[in-house]
Amino acid sequence: MSKTIVYEVEVMFGDCDPAGIVFFPNYSKWMDGASLNFFRQCGLPPWRELQKTRGIIGTPLLEIHTRFLRPASYGDRLQIHTRITEWRNKVFIHQHVVKRGDELLCEGTETRAFVVHPPEEPDRIKAIPIPEDIKALCSRRESGCSDSSAC
Amino acid sequence: MSKTIVYEVEVMFGDCDPAGIVFFPNYSKWMDGASLNFFRQCGLPPWRELQKTRGIIGTPLLEIHTRFLRPASYGDRLQIHTRITEWRNKVFIHQHVVKRGDELLCEGTETRAFVVHPPEEPDRIKAIPIPEDIKALCSRRESGCSDSSAC
Amino acid sequence: MSKTIVYEVEVMFGDCDPAGIVFFPNYSKWMDGASLNFFRQCGLPPWRELQKTRGIIGTPLLEIHTRFLRPASYGDRLQIHTRITEWRNKVFIHQHVVKRGDELLCEGTETRAFVVHPPEEPDRIKAIPIPEDIKALCSRRESGCSDSSAC
Amino acid sequence: MSKTIVYEVEVMFGDCDPAGIVFFPNYSKWMDGASLNFFRQCGLPPWRELQKTRGIIGTPLLEIHTRFLRPASYGDRLQIHTRITEWRNKVFIHQHVVKRGDELLCEGTETRAFVVHPPEEPDRIKAIPIPEDIKALCSRRESGCSDSSAC
Repeated sequence: MSKTIVYEVEVMFGDCDPAGIVFFPNYSKWMDGASLNFFRQCGLPPWRELQKTRGIIGTPLLEIHTRFLRPASYGDRLQIHTRITEWRNKVFIHQHVVKRGDELLCEGTETRAFVVHPPEEPDRIKAIPIPEDIKALCSRRESGCSDSSAC
Repeated sequence: MSKTIVYEVEVMFGDCDPAGIVFFPNYSKWMDGASLNFFRQCGLPPWRELQKTRGIIGTPLLEIHTRFLRPASYGDRLQIHTRITEWRNKVFIHQHVVKRGDELLCEGTETRAFVVHPPEEPDRIKAIPIPEDIKALCSRRESGCSDSSAC
Repeated sequence: MSKTIVYEVEVMFGDCDPAGIVFFPNYSKWMDGASLNFFRQCGLPPWRELQKTRGIIGTPLLEIHTRFLRPASYGDRLQIHTRITEWRNKVFIHQHVVKRGDELLCEGTETRAFVVHPPEEPDRIKAIPIPEDIKALCSRRESGCSDSSAC
Repeated sequence: MSKTIVYEVEVMFGDCDPAGIVFFPNYSKWMDGASLNFFRQCGLPPWRELQKTRGIIGTPLLEIHTRFLRPASYGDRLQIHTRITEWRNKVFIHQHVVKRGDELLCEGTETRAFVVHPPEEPDRIKAIPIPEDIKALCSRRESGCSDSSAC
């Protein structure tokens, strides 16, 4: 089990639709922000640096699955609780739980892979085996640290 | 089985991310556009009119499930093939298949419900049983008409 | 001169375009968020409440003018410094200065009006004279309070 | 004076805000789409190809100025009439007029420049003098061709 990192967003007027509630694709956008934040909080540099040093250009999505339980609206502050629930050979599963304080609003999983441009085909992207050092960074638990953005 | 309606979008530069490919939440946005287009092509008025006449304010999402197979970029023209694969009592399942010509890029399902503001609690939304006339409209197949936006 | 309120945003990966920099319409979105935040920090309730009590549905835009000086990218934290530089009879001018720490990235003005649905034409929107109490709320300066989101 | 090219968009539900009308930054996004479409219709390849052949990575914005006259909502089809009103040494002015049939909804100007990554500083972008051949492509008028996307 990985660390859990909390990412906070404030819903803007422009995130909401004519029904006055968050337009649902924004949850996917915020989960993507929470994923990147997760890796940054675990100690990874931004993709643009990782691309220079190791060729890794990011963690694109293979699959998403999201359930919407309660609506939110502009002015609400949401907390996205993000962790990695499974590491496979070339993919990993992110879980995001979106809350407004104690209320559960939405939860989703993402299947992602670390990708590079293969040297022989620089216009394509290709998944690589999950780098062990990244896995270790995301999994490490310092004593006394659990489920908090302060980890 | 319902009709299949095709909705076309052209990918804009601003739909793409720093990797140069479509930022994935845009697929959800386009599927939402394809859903509304589906109902309009089946003969339903816009939600703002249906709200006045029947109280129906739209078909919000309960759940989405999407798989991303191949990337797209700006300038690409995508066709979203949309149908309803299942009608339950209060929810229905939309299937969206996103293609670029013959290539399959992405496919997803949405679980949606028709909702109203209940008179006793006008600030809330509540699912209603699928209206039979709407089901009939979406399911009707004229002879010789299949898988086309001209249906 | 009004108060100045600072609104902070963190740039997400999905806010950036294939050139790797913020896609410019996002600055308009953030300025809109900064405008709403300005009124909330000045003590106004959200539009959905103001609509019920006074019929005011928001402050839509009549005109925007924005200059882009330096690019930003994902992971950057931006501060939007927002104030009202002019009150006319039925419109007011918002000024937004977007900074990354000390660096000036972008600056813009917005011309906005407070609007209502006129009772005789509920489908339309109409500008009203700037309410004096709102003007007072936004203009009031407590002693020792200047240019800070803590005002 | 340049050609005028018409770009059409259909407003989606998710383009609209809680007031039920187009959230204004979307006009900037569509004008950006209309700008790219303008250059493609004039015969330019996509930026990703122009970058490989000539180092030109796009035409980022220096300034925008937009006036909003009438609102639009989902389901509306809008036509954006785009031309270049001025060529200076290193910048050019785009004019976009957004209509819904005969109704004028919005109009804006954009100040843009063609940019490259200077070889000596590959992380920066730098404006270049407007290439004469591109200017010629955009300005050429075939006989009998005016104000139409068919030009």
